Amino acid sequence: MEKRQVVTGIDIGGTNTVFGFVDRDGNILGEDRIKTNHYPEATGFVSALFEKIVAAHRKIEQDTEIIGFGIGAPMGNINKGTIEYPADLPWKGITPLAELFKRHTDLPVVVTNDANAAAVGEMIYGGAKGMKDFVVITLGTGMGSGFVVDGKLVYGHDGFAGEIGHTSIRPGTSNRDCGCGKKGCIETYASATGLKRTLLKVMADSISPSDLRKYSFEELDAKMIHDAALKGDQIAIAAFEHTGMMLGFKLADVAAHTNPEAIFLFGGLALARDLIFEPTRRYMEENLLYIYRGKVKLLESKLSTQNAAVLGASSLVWSIREQQ
Amino acid sequence: MEKRQVVTGIDIGGTNTVFGFVDRDGNILGEDRIKTNHYPEATGFVSALFEKIVAAHRKIEQDTEIIGFGIGAPMGNINKGTIEYPADLPWKGITPLAELFKRHTDLPVVVTNDANAAAVGEMIYGGAKGMKDFVVITLGTGMGSGFVVDGKLVYGHDGFAGEIGHTSIRPGTSNRDCGCGKKGCIETYASATGLKRTLLKVMADSISPSDLRKYSFEELDAKMIHDAALKGDQIAIAAFEHTGMMLGFKLADVAAHTNPEAIFLFGGLALARDLIFEPTRRYMEENLLYIYRGKVKLLESKLSTQNAAVLGASSLVWSIREQQ
Repeated sequence: MEKRQVVTGIDIGGTNTVFGFVDRDGNILGEDRIKTNHYPEATGFVSALFEKIVAAHRKIEQDTEIIGFGIGAPMGNINKGTIEYPADLPWKGITPLAELFKRHTDLPVVVTNDANAAAVGEMIYGGAKGMKDFVVITLGTGMGSGFVVDGKLVYGHDGFAGEIGHTSIRPGTSNRDCGCGKKGCIETYASATGLKRTLLKVMADSISPSDLRKYSFEELDAKMIHDAALKGDQIAIAAFEHTGMMLGFKLADVAAHTNPEAIFLFGGLALARDLIFEPTRRYMEENLLYIYRGKVKLLESKLSTQNAAVLGASSLVWSIREQQ
Repeated sequence: MEKRQVVTGIDIGGTNTVFGFVDRDGNILGEDRIKTNHYPEATGFVSALFEKIVAAHRKIEQDTEIIGFGIGAPMGNINKGTIEYPADLPWKGITPLAELFKRHTDLPVVVTNDANAAAVGEMIYGGAKGMKDFVVITLGTGMGSGFVVDGKLVYGHDGFAGEIGHTSIRPGTSNRDCGCGKKGCIETYASATGLKRTLLKVMADSISPSDLRKYSFEELDAKMIHDAALKGDQIAIAAFEHTGMMLGFKLADVAAHTNPEAIFLFGGLALARDLIFEPTRRYMEENLLYIYRGKVKLLESKLSTQNAAVLGASSLVWSIREQQ
């Protein structure tokens, strides 16, 4: 009997590393995890991870054959198979991740960042099936993006294409501080953290009453602002409006660079649905050059947020295989 | 004897349409032109142009064989072979240019805008030979751009990728008016016209003496500002500095989208060399995310400005042929 082919999708985060075995239809057959931050050395991390993968696969292996490893990681470099200067991982500098994996397997190993993985995941399993030109924007703690041009993920010369979260909304130095060291990056507006920052700004400028005035910056999260907005909280609604204004402004730039068929929003902030989509779409249209107006679809990601990272990571291997 | 293969490169401008027969090394074997604005109908224009091409080719045909037609035109759509709503041509709406050409020939006909043509020209004949990921920015009366990703020109879903001249430098409505109907487009700064506008702004704000105060906006051109700056005119120098600030800011965005190996500057404004390259490079570096710093080359185009449009247009046919 021919075995079902699966890809091991691995999502490396600052705290946990989650993996699963994913078939071509996006079914996840087994999932497990290890603690990323228990391993001060990447070598030890990869060995432990590999052991855990083998153990997990043993439980399902009578039916399945692993055909490769797709890894999503912060600052994952798809050209080199490395992780380079990540802010939130225990391993500093450049980690040759694919090389470390190759000590344990002869199968293909692909490394990239989570936004690129989400973009390929959208193409292989999600709402971008059949699309040739689209962009996925991830709106989580930060903001990432993955560009697909003519059916292929854009890598860039150094493997770092799609860092639009760190393009600025205006020139000058009187803009919001970003964790990257620059000022005014769109990520400081269009992300869960950005929404909180904007809420504080609106709260400072306005005298409207709001239940959210009870909470500290640290206590607040995007979900609370979302819930308040649904209940008609004017400050929360204004924060979403302003976030959509900044995001829509920047998405008009995205359209003018690669002229995509669609832009997908993915991640926590995208779950706010109309609260974020409506103002974003409105301001994007307002800022689009006339030849693009009414033509760029702004869509919700079809990857479930829960499994998206593992799905996205696994999709890289399917994608490369199908282009060969 | 085998004939030398040539492509007919055609540059359609508002006043003149220039064409030439270009071999694979970028040698132009014959050049001629017709008046674009003498033809109120595109059908008549194409017939007259084709007649002129046949006549010009007759003079050299014993040696050469035409293998295709590459056409650069404002708002040229590479997906559809059309010109769509151009501002400066006599034919309004959508002109099915490739289709009209096909009435006269069975050879390949490719249509695109001048910035895309310049990008492919740079790859086939110019400074981007061997590069896989780069961007060409054209700085003329307006500002255009052509993106090459993984060795291929980015078309986009609607055939209109690379209109970064019409991305805005900041959100809001208190920005410079652009001819496209929007506000604050980078083209209103980074172009020959933009330089003049910036000069007037600097002149208004400053009390420095300047020979340029003698000239009206209409009398001024980029060359005069260039010459004045070379002679130490502080207002002209400040205008270049500000232009470089805006352009560098926007080129950092370009780097974050597709992570190119190089960005080429092409066109009249690029001829100002260090006056424009130095501030542009400085502000680009300042605005780059750390992973890109020191890695994105800012280069002068190697296409001669004089023949670039015809060269660029012809390169499209070579490029498509070599990818087959």
